[in-house]
Amino acid sequence: MADRANPIRFGILGCAAIARKVSRAIALALNAAVVAVGSRSLDKAQSFIADNGLPPATRAHGSYEAVLDDPDVDAVYVPLPTSLHVRWAVAAAEHGKHVLLEKPTALCAADLDRILEACGSHGVQFMDSTMWMHHPRTARMRDLLSDPNRFGQLKAIHSIFTFRGDPDFLQNDIRVKPDLDALGALGDLGWYCIRSVLWSADYELPKTAIAHHGCVKNQAGVILSCGATLVWDDAKVATFHCSFLSNQTMELCVMGTRGTLHLSDFVIPFEETPANFRLATDSKFKELHIGWQPLPSEHVISTDLPQEALMIQELSRLAGSIRDSGSKPDEKWPIITRKTQLVLDAVKESIEKGFEPVNITG
Amino acid sequence: MADRANPIRFGILGCAAIARKVSRAIALALNAAVVAVGSRSLDKAQSFIADNGLPPATRAHGSYEAVLDDPDVDAVYVPLPTSLHVRWAVAAAEHGKHVLLEKPTALCAADLDRILEACGSHGVQFMDSTMWMHHPRTARMRDLLSDPNRFGQLKAIHSIFTFRGDPDFLQNDIRVKPDLDALGALGDLGWYCIRSVLWSADYELPKTAIAHHGCVKNQAGVILSCGATLVWDDAKVATFHCSFLSNQTMELCVMGTRGTLHLSDFVIPFEETPANFRLATDSKFKELHIGWQPLPSEHVISTDLPQEALMIQELSRLAGSIRDSGSKPDEKWPIITRKTQLVLDAVKESIEKGFEPVNITG
Repeated sequence: MADRANPIRFGILGCAAIARKVSRAIALALNAAVVAVGSRSLDKAQSFIADNGLPPATRAHGSYEAVLDDPDVDAVYVPLPTSLHVRWAVAAAEHGKHVLLEKPTALCAADLDRILEACGSHGVQFMDSTMWMHHPRTARMRDLLSDPNRFGQLKAIHSIFTFRGDPDFLQNDIRVKPDLDALGALGDLGWYCIRSVLWSADYELPKTAIAHHGCVKNQAGVILSCGATLVWDDAKVATFHCSFLSNQTMELCVMGTRGTLHLSDFVIPFEETPANFRLATDSKFKELHIGWQPLPSEHVISTDLPQEALMIQELSRLAGSIRDSGSKPDEKWPIITRKTQLVLDAVKESIEKGFEPVNITG
Repeated sequence: MADRANPIRFGILGCAAIARKVSRAIALALNAAVVAVGSRSLDKAQSFIADNGLPPATRAHGSYEAVLDDPDVDAVYVPLPTSLHVRWAVAAAEHGKHVLLEKPTALCAADLDRILEACGSHGVQFMDSTMWMHHPRTARMRDLLSDPNRFGQLKAIHSIFTFRGDPDFLQNDIRVKPDLDALGALGDLGWYCIRSVLWSADYELPKTAIAHHGCVKNQAGVILSCGATLVWDDAKVATFHCSFLSNQTMELCVMGTRGTLHLSDFVIPFEETPANFRLATDSKFKELHIGWQPLPSEHVISTDLPQEALMIQELSRLAGSIRDSGSKPDEKWPIITRKTQLVLDAVKESIEKGFEPVNITG
């Protein structure tokens, strides 16, 4: 079992801003440790180690290859631009490293499949870095959505994730560059919306995606703002909206026959702890329709560790089980990733086809 | 000026459940009074007066015509099924009565125009019964949406209004009957969503409506659940969802370049007073993206009178000004009503055309 004394040893590929958050998370996790940082520049790797208070023994490497060649690295965190994911995630798997891959995981499902196949054939654990999946709030909400007496049957979902990119972001960030993160806001933000929709539907794939008119692209054709409707055979329906052009917003509203779940910070909680959500069950009006009865209930969930550290712990638990008990990789995580990517691909295709419906096939 | 001593005298056409709430509102308003109730059955009118604690002097009439012929009635409240609106609202105007008309105001804009023309040519005030427009919370939110430093430029809107009809409702309510309220959930609930979208956009009409796939109709073809995307020329975008099939939910989220407005009870506040909403401005993450800074601010708005009484007071103020000062009817209210109906018509047409885009023209 991976623990403090015998942790899963992480190497970080690249010094992206998000790697600072994840390196802290690895340090907080009880069964993981950062042992190496690789960058195209040895100086940058050394600075990253020093600036982020990593242990002095952390090895700086002047290339990504060197991290993969490092025999004392068990797992890698890959926050590189999406266009580089296939190359480096596949290489990591081939070197026997477990893979924690930033989202969007790939430019398309075919690329993702190359990554998942490499992980599968080399017996390493794959997980995408969708942190909110690992918050205890998420598990508590899932329990309630599964309760027929508190939520009933799922009918509709709406999800929003936006933030306003400043002029520098909209000009220079990798997320608006067609050769780096070509999926733009759909890949960076819509990823979370789509995941929240699938999570709400207990990962039942919708049948059809229809992108919304009003999609905004930059001059290079990268999506800055878009949305879509997702439809299931039983007439469940979901909509989402993602954008680099509006104030930071993270709404999730899930409606069942008997209940409504709502929260305004589903991707990153307002505060590290506690985190809240609201559940309404069998909402009615009072006599004369002059107010609600019952009122929605507020739920407050505390956590000892932030969601990103819990994500690292979960990956390390699975990697430890492979290392110590000869277990096979857990297929739950790659399956969820692949469904998310399939829906994302369908939304992108719908945008490209002028907002026509696109079938989603597994 | 209409006041307690010299109020606007209301007649109520029909004894619908909602008329109980509005008769209380008329009694609460400081410048209005219920003086007559008409029903197709004199008994029902008498029972309504007794059951709702109306003054003993309130006149019961055994027909709608008799209310219109009552010379001591200044204004009528019309909660009849939508299919009867043209007939009775036009007749009321022709009898010189001001008209407070339940929503949806008409089955189509052409019908509404007959009503508005009758009101215009007879110099009576028209207002639809969209109560939340009159809550002081609404005015406060409008101020904030107009503040470039707190909200910025409007970019996106999402609105939801659902409730779960029980089996009896889904079988027998006038709102699922093609000969009575043929617009179904779109007319009953989507009306509020569309109004909230127009309100957010300061009544700038969107250019195009595209209904969402996943619309649910009953066997008679009446809409039970639907949604739509609305798009403006400047790429503002709105989506809404309305349904008789999900737990009662009323979400409004309005996103600007600098701010996000959110509330979960926009149609009928959770409690008569106070009512809340949340505004976030310039939302960012803390260092390392481990929380938000600043947090959204909670706003609490109290009101001396419920929103429906304030609606009655506003109509009575305008009616009193016509009565006492020879003013012309205020055109603001019919203009807002007509825009709402135009968008509703376009969404309905889009559904009928298989979710094709429909231009909205004034």
